[in-house]
Amino acid sequence: MDRKIHLDEKDIPRQWYNIAADLPTPMLPTLGPDGNPVKPEMLAPVFPMNIIEQEVSTQRWIDIPEEVLDILYRWRPAPLRRAVYLERYLKTPARIYYKDESTSPPGSHKPNTAVPQAWYNKQFGIKRLTTETGAGQWGAALAFACKLIGLECKIFMVRISFDQKPFRKLMMQVWDGNCVASPSSETNAGRAILEKYPDTPGSLGMAISEAIEQAVTDPKGQTRYSLGSVLNHVMLHQTIIGLEAKAQLKKIGERLPDVVIGCAGGGSNFAGIAFPFTADKINGANIEIIPAEPAACPTLTRAPFAYDHGDTACMTPLFPMYSLGHDFVPPPIHAGGLRYHGMSPLVCQCVVEGLHKPRAIDQVECYQAALTWAQTEGFICAPETSHAIAATIQEANKAKEEGKEKVILFSYSGHGLMDLSGYDAFMSGKLQPYQLPDVMLEKTEACLKTHPKAPQRKTGKW
Amino acid sequence: MDRKIHLDEKDIPRQWYNIAADLPTPMLPTLGPDGNPVKPEMLAPVFPMNIIEQEVSTQRWIDIPEEVLDILYRWRPAPLRRAVYLERYLKTPARIYYKDESTSPPGSHKPNTAVPQAWYNKQFGIKRLTTETGAGQWGAALAFACKLIGLECKIFMVRISFDQKPFRKLMMQVWDGNCVASPSSETNAGRAILEKYPDTPGSLGMAISEAIEQAVTDPKGQTRYSLGSVLNHVMLHQTIIGLEAKAQLKKIGERLPDVVIGCAGGGSNFAGIAFPFTADKINGANIEIIPAEPAACPTLTRAPFAYDHGDTACMTPLFPMYSLGHDFVPPPIHAGGLRYHGMSPLVCQCVVEGLHKPRAIDQVECYQAALTWAQTEGFICAPETSHAIAATIQEANKAKEEGKEKVILFSYSGHGLMDLSGYDAFMSGKLQPYQLPDVMLEKTEACLKTHPKAPQRKTGKW
Repeated sequence: MDRKIHLDEKDIPRQWYNIAADLPTPMLPTLGPDGNPVKPEMLAPVFPMNIIEQEVSTQRWIDIPEEVLDILYRWRPAPLRRAVYLERYLKTPARIYYKDESTSPPGSHKPNTAVPQAWYNKQFGIKRLTTETGAGQWGAALAFACKLIGLECKIFMVRISFDQKPFRKLMMQVWDGNCVASPSSETNAGRAILEKYPDTPGSLGMAISEAIEQAVTDPKGQTRYSLGSVLNHVMLHQTIIGLEAKAQLKKIGERLPDVVIGCAGGGSNFAGIAFPFTADKINGANIEIIPAEPAACPTLTRAPFAYDHGDTACMTPLFPMYSLGHDFVPPPIHAGGLRYHGMSPLVCQCVVEGLHKPRAIDQVECYQAALTWAQTEGFICAPETSHAIAATIQEANKAKEEGKEKVILFSYSGHGLMDLSGYDAFMSGKLQPYQLPDVMLEKTEACLKTHPKAPQRKTGKW
Repeated sequence: MDRKIHLDEKDIPRQWYNIAADLPTPMLPTLGPDGNPVKPEMLAPVFPMNIIEQEVSTQRWIDIPEEVLDILYRWRPAPLRRAVYLERYLKTPARIYYKDESTSPPGSHKPNTAVPQAWYNKQFGIKRLTTETGAGQWGAALAFACKLIGLECKIFMVRISFDQKPFRKLMMQVWDGNCVASPSSETNAGRAILEKYPDTPGSLGMAISEAIEQAVTDPKGQTRYSLGSVLNHVMLHQTIIGLEAKAQLKKIGERLPDVVIGCAGGGSNFAGIAFPFTADKINGANIEIIPAEPAACPTLTRAPFAYDHGDTACMTPLFPMYSLGHDFVPPPIHAGGLRYHGMSPLVCQCVVEGLHKPRAIDQVECYQAALTWAQTEGFICAPETSHAIAATIQEANKAKEEGKEKVILFSYSGHGLMDLSGYDAFMSGKLQPYQLPDVMLEKTEACLKTHPKAPQRKTGKW
């Protein structure tokens, strides 16, 4: 059997899968600043109406526009690959498949949603998108999408990353993205922060504030804001990952996987691989579906389920989700894309329903898994992706102990070629195992308890 | 028609093509320090005998070992891709195909030869390989190959690159490569240089001297040296590029290309795509085959054809090739992989015979082509690869002027994700057009004329 399983263009999925149609319990509403459910038109200054319609849709299948497919064909259908070299190394009876999302031009799964978001905005008459980026994966993906679609793109990049990761910024510039360090002097929010803290390293919360401000204050109304994870429409767009993988497994006569794994920060890459198989699980299939998150930022495994803001500055509505608290400051781990206090409400709902079984993994185990991967399969994965690989190795070893020929599928969310400093820290012995101390979770509880707009609360495992 | 054309593993080429069997005129011999042809056994301290046999072979087809294929399957067969987005942008009637060598774990075509070289050394009982690297592409490929095959790998990296490109060094370390800055204190050559010039930035010539010294002075005789370009066996291993491309064009019912293009530094990536089609040209097919080189280092287009050393320190034998002189110091252009004074003797012979028509392209035109590529096809190419893209754009525009439906094929030798500083220089307007001044070529002529071991001499276009 070939190690790479390709789909022809004619077999690419032509509809996204919307799990909101199939959840056993309907989603809790998103709440506005007044504590009442948000109405679609309230989001209109931030997002175009065609995206808002997707955000609130409960239609099971949503067509992927032909023009969007024409752009995705640059790297999609993406290869499904069999990790035979890792299998041999582990001496596992499991068959390990991975969906290779590192083949997109920006090197991750992010453009799967950046492209349709840019396209829908363009259709709606928007000329310019704003966004924030931390390490730069999302900013690069949106700059790429905007360039191909013909929109201007403004990216507020957390200042410390802007200074420390010049290559990601250059990548955005190659695609004509206008990337500035945040806080900047271009917005009221940025100027206010700079006046108070001229030497601040910046934060994702500050950058979101700046990006939203520039979107909603455009006097011509031709600017909107774009988010790379968490929201329902983002999860929707990413389901192309799992839908392709399902078609590829079918093509080679493989059965449904026994285990599906993805790393989870805001949830989009995980949802992408997981939701199409979650549908099978809802229909009775026996599949273990595992979001793998950092032990240093254990949103799904240790945080309470509550209503909370998506951003530090409390500019977003309140989402029903597991949250470490919107003022949670994650420790500086190298998997920057997983340092998020909350999680996609759709993924959270699946966890509440018992459809997904989250797992937290320590950074040292993750980097060990990444090195094992690089020295067997050969490729250098993103620090985020290493969480999925570590969980996969755990499951492959379990299959070996149980003597079971399991089928394991995971999402290889991106390559690590521009994030090698974490490997350096690990290889030179500078990384220590790190579990989030309980005292941090007490702060979370306090943050959420004092939140006036958090009527529902359900404690998770914690 | 699909934009990506894949081959199944069962259709991968199982033999390399050796152009030495088909050249209209036999190759001139390589000469030793005494001016007489080098005998295979004289190379034995440097290379294992099974590689030396390939180096001097005139057998047309040479089997690729199954164990080598098992490693190459990690990324091979590599996709052939149709550049439809560039075609649309240029409004050309040409059909542009490119062989995507950027999909290997180290990101370039280099592992196509690193893997078999490591394998043959291992078969011969060697425990350790040494090599030199400039920007780090070759060092990373050899570290990767040695890790998978089970050899130690020692890489002498030019000090200035070692300091300026920490990510490439980290990449080598991920694959357990032992990478040191050259000149180092580990060799007599290195120590002698450091004593005289403690602050030297290093050079490829110095690094070669160190790598060869460590290979030939191993008291156990278990170390050999490995070279990533120029030599015949390297060109042989790279022919898998063109052989796959030929099978892929056939698979979709496409005719033989009218134009075949590759960037040329030492010649290996170009030979890889070109030699299998050069065979067709020798047999009468009408194909224009273009090595594209930097105007700043115009070996094939402006240098004399002569006998010269492959290295600055004159440790190698004398090769019959176009050469800018072994003491030529190329200007500091960003396409580090193309900064070489000489060229593969096999490629040079093809140029002498009129089979290949070299073209020199200015760095500004190359970066403009790279940006056009990134903003149409979406991918960010290596600075070296941009030379092939620039030549492709020239040919596509020519096809448009002529109104001809030409088929153009080029080798996309690698991605540029770890070489973005050149893009930065270009985008910020710091790059100027640069043609090598004639005075530099007068120095070349002087260098080669005073060379006592240069009996044959034929002036090229210059």
